[in-house]
Amino acid sequence: MKTLPGFRDFYPEDCARRNYILSTWREVARRHGFVEYDGPVLESIELYQKKSGGELVGQLFNFSDKGDRQVTLRPEMTPTLARMVAARARDFRKPLKWFCVPQFFRYEKPQRGRGREFYQFNADLIGEASDAADAELIALVIDVLKEFGFTAKDFVVRLSSRTAWQKFFAAAGGEAAREDDFFQIVDKIERMPPEKTGEALGALGVPELTADRVLAFLRGGEPGELAPVLENLQARGMGDYVEIDYAIVRGLAYYTGVVFEVFDRSKNERALAGGGRYDRLLALMSDGKVDLPALGFGMGDIVLENLIDDVPAARERRDAWMAQQRACDVYLVVAKAELRLDAVALAQSLRDAGLRVDFPLVDTKVGKQFQAAEQLGAEVAVVVGDEWPQVKVKTLATREEVTVANRGLADWWRTRQKGV
Amino acid sequence: MKTLPGFRDFYPEDCARRNYILSTWREVARRHGFVEYDGPVLESIELYQKKSGGELVGQLFNFSDKGDRQVTLRPEMTPTLARMVAARARDFRKPLKWFCVPQFFRYEKPQRGRGREFYQFNADLIGEASDAADAELIALVIDVLKEFGFTAKDFVVRLSSRTAWQKFFAAAGGEAAREDDFFQIVDKIERMPPEKTGEALGALGVPELTADRVLAFLRGGEPGELAPVLENLQARGMGDYVEIDYAIVRGLAYYTGVVFEVFDRSKNERALAGGGRYDRLLALMSDGKVDLPALGFGMGDIVLENLIDDVPAARERRDAWMAQQRACDVYLVVAKAELRLDAVALAQSLRDAGLRVDFPLVDTKVGKQFQAAEQLGAEVAVVVGDEWPQVKVKTLATREEVTVANRGLADWWRTRQKGV
Repeated sequence: MKTLPGFRDFYPEDCARRNYILSTWREVARRHGFVEYDGPVLESIELYQKKSGGELVGQLFNFSDKGDRQVTLRPEMTPTLARMVAARARDFRKPLKWFCVPQFFRYEKPQRGRGREFYQFNADLIGEASDAADAELIALVIDVLKEFGFTAKDFVVRLSSRTAWQKFFAAAGGEAAREDDFFQIVDKIERMPPEKTGEALGALGVPELTADRVLAFLRGGEPGELAPVLENLQARGMGDYVEIDYAIVRGLAYYTGVVFEVFDRSKNERALAGGGRYDRLLALMSDGKVDLPALGFGMGDIVLENLIDDVPAARERRDAWMAQQRACDVYLVVAKAELRLDAVALAQSLRDAGLRVDFPLVDTKVGKQFQAAEQLGAEVAVVVGDEWPQVKVKTLATREEVTVANRGLADWWRTRQKGV
Repeated sequence: MKTLPGFRDFYPEDCARRNYILSTWREVARRHGFVEYDGPVLESIELYQKKSGGELVGQLFNFSDKGDRQVTLRPEMTPTLARMVAARARDFRKPLKWFCVPQFFRYEKPQRGRGREFYQFNADLIGEASDAADAELIALVIDVLKEFGFTAKDFVVRLSSRTAWQKFFAAAGGEAAREDDFFQIVDKIERMPPEKTGEALGALGVPELTADRVLAFLRGGEPGELAPVLENLQARGMGDYVEIDYAIVRGLAYYTGVVFEVFDRSKNERALAGGGRYDRLLALMSDGKVDLPALGFGMGDIVLENLIDDVPAARERRDAWMAQQRACDVYLVVAKAELRLDAVALAQSLRDAGLRVDFPLVDTKVGKQFQAAEQLGAEVAVVVGDEWPQVKVKTLATREEVTVANRGLADWWRTRQKGV
């Protein structure tokens, strides 16, 4: 019996590493005024067909349920978000600043950095067309990665604008109807031999649109309309984290304005996050019922975790968090069997006071009990023995020992924690 | 476009209510020395056939994936836990005290208190046969419910013993091979007309086993071998939360010793949690590779949330938690448009200091900005205006106002929080 290919078991250590990522996402999102929402793990397949025109359907975990509904495990959040916002758009003050940390499912070939399930931090800002919203969203991406312990040496946000490309295309004489085809070419231009690019551009029927001109624009890197976004991020002290890069256009058809991708700065250039504006998607998804400008991004957990493993400062920060989450504040060493029920009562009173407490369930040699205390990462071992109703309290890291009344133990702990 | 029947959207308020339950489960489990684990949402269907002999298969969200694997959304955790423990039993100190807060999926008729998805707190204690382990697990159930604000007036743990029933059955002359059939009868006895019970018992071919005798044992309520568990719980001050009730046998075939169910005390008698010992299951699931005594319980979120809604003390505790989780510590009121970028910089510096900060993305009337601050539940509004580089800080609840240097604002906040 094994896990399915591309799926993960989370043993306690793995689960703590996962929870570190999820809780860091949540904490930074809240600092930025984003509130959490979630949707169902299972959705009607139509929801995705509507948005993508079927792009993703080949990668879905889809099936027919026992009521003959065509359903699928969710591969992404935007359609769910659009459905939810469309249903209750009037109930919320604009702009909406919403985030979630869902698990997604895609039937792809598992490989390093990619499983068939993964968690993804999603944040969306809905109802504000100003570029101040773009800056506010990008600041969140940057701040989340900073919180993990990464610096401008570790990652970069590559910023681009579909609007800039649209203007370029229109100025060259391109028809709006062929825009998407043009974006597909730009998206692949750096991975394609120049003659192939030339051919593909030729098929658009716009004589002025040569590969050289497209590449010149791509490499020009003028801020243009991205200047206010850059200025805003600079005001936040985040200028070092951003670069203009017109090679970024994002593959999906629904992006409309600013788009961006975040890469790690090592030679691996792994993509950590991506997003942008999708001002027309809500109207499309709601058949025109709700028409709000919007933008958002996604950041997966798998590449992120690999990068944390690779960057010492990030690894140390995670290790410190995980040590804090240790299973145990106090381990009770039951040194006299006849005091067992007293020890149980003491354990409960400490738990009632909010402490993390463990103790041996059955009679065990005292040496083994101290071993258990160490292995569980307990901060202190409390010996319930000859001194009862007093107890000996041993700080495991320093070997310091004090004797206190068992009823005063919770107070002693609180005073000590304040002093630390 | 709607959610599938039996599935839930979690708008921000719903999501906070869900998170309150999940985080309370986690917090109390950790206090009791349990550590979190998780498994995949999707598993091979065989995993469940092995355990239940197919009982649950009619209720599964199962399908054939794109690699022709027979897979299913998980309906419960025990098979996953057994698989994980069996694979790495030697890596962990015994007893294992593990918990998780997974979402489960069952294709049942949606009704009040039951959806097609739900979250369930699962805690298991593996590798300890002593009844001290039973008490330790039941103490966790009780403590979790106490933490939600419930008292002995709101819920009760009904405690029973399969061993006691086994002895009773054997003493009457029953064959071990018919034990499961006997448990099925006891499980339904209080919902079945007496003559039906008589018929069913008759079919077991044990003349001494009359309905009267079975009911007499059931209603006798002698602690018997449950005495040490009761004594242990009484030492913890939890005696009022437990009752012996031999009507509880749990439907599933794999339980072996102490079993229990938790009910609310109102006339609705809703089941809040249930569990017990399953000492032979790990060996069965691992084909004998790992043979460890074990026990565990599950507590779902839906009935629990209904009960929180019904009990004022529990509702107040949740509301207090939710107010603490408010989206915003500080709302920046931008009173002069030319100070916008200064305000953005200030927002970022406060976020860097760990505060939850929001501000209007575009120029807005000052009155509307104060309205937004109130609606977002901000604790203070900070006016960036004529006093710059000082700012006016207004505590929204009390209308108190002070003026501080913008660079000193984070320190001011910290000092103030310590004083509260």
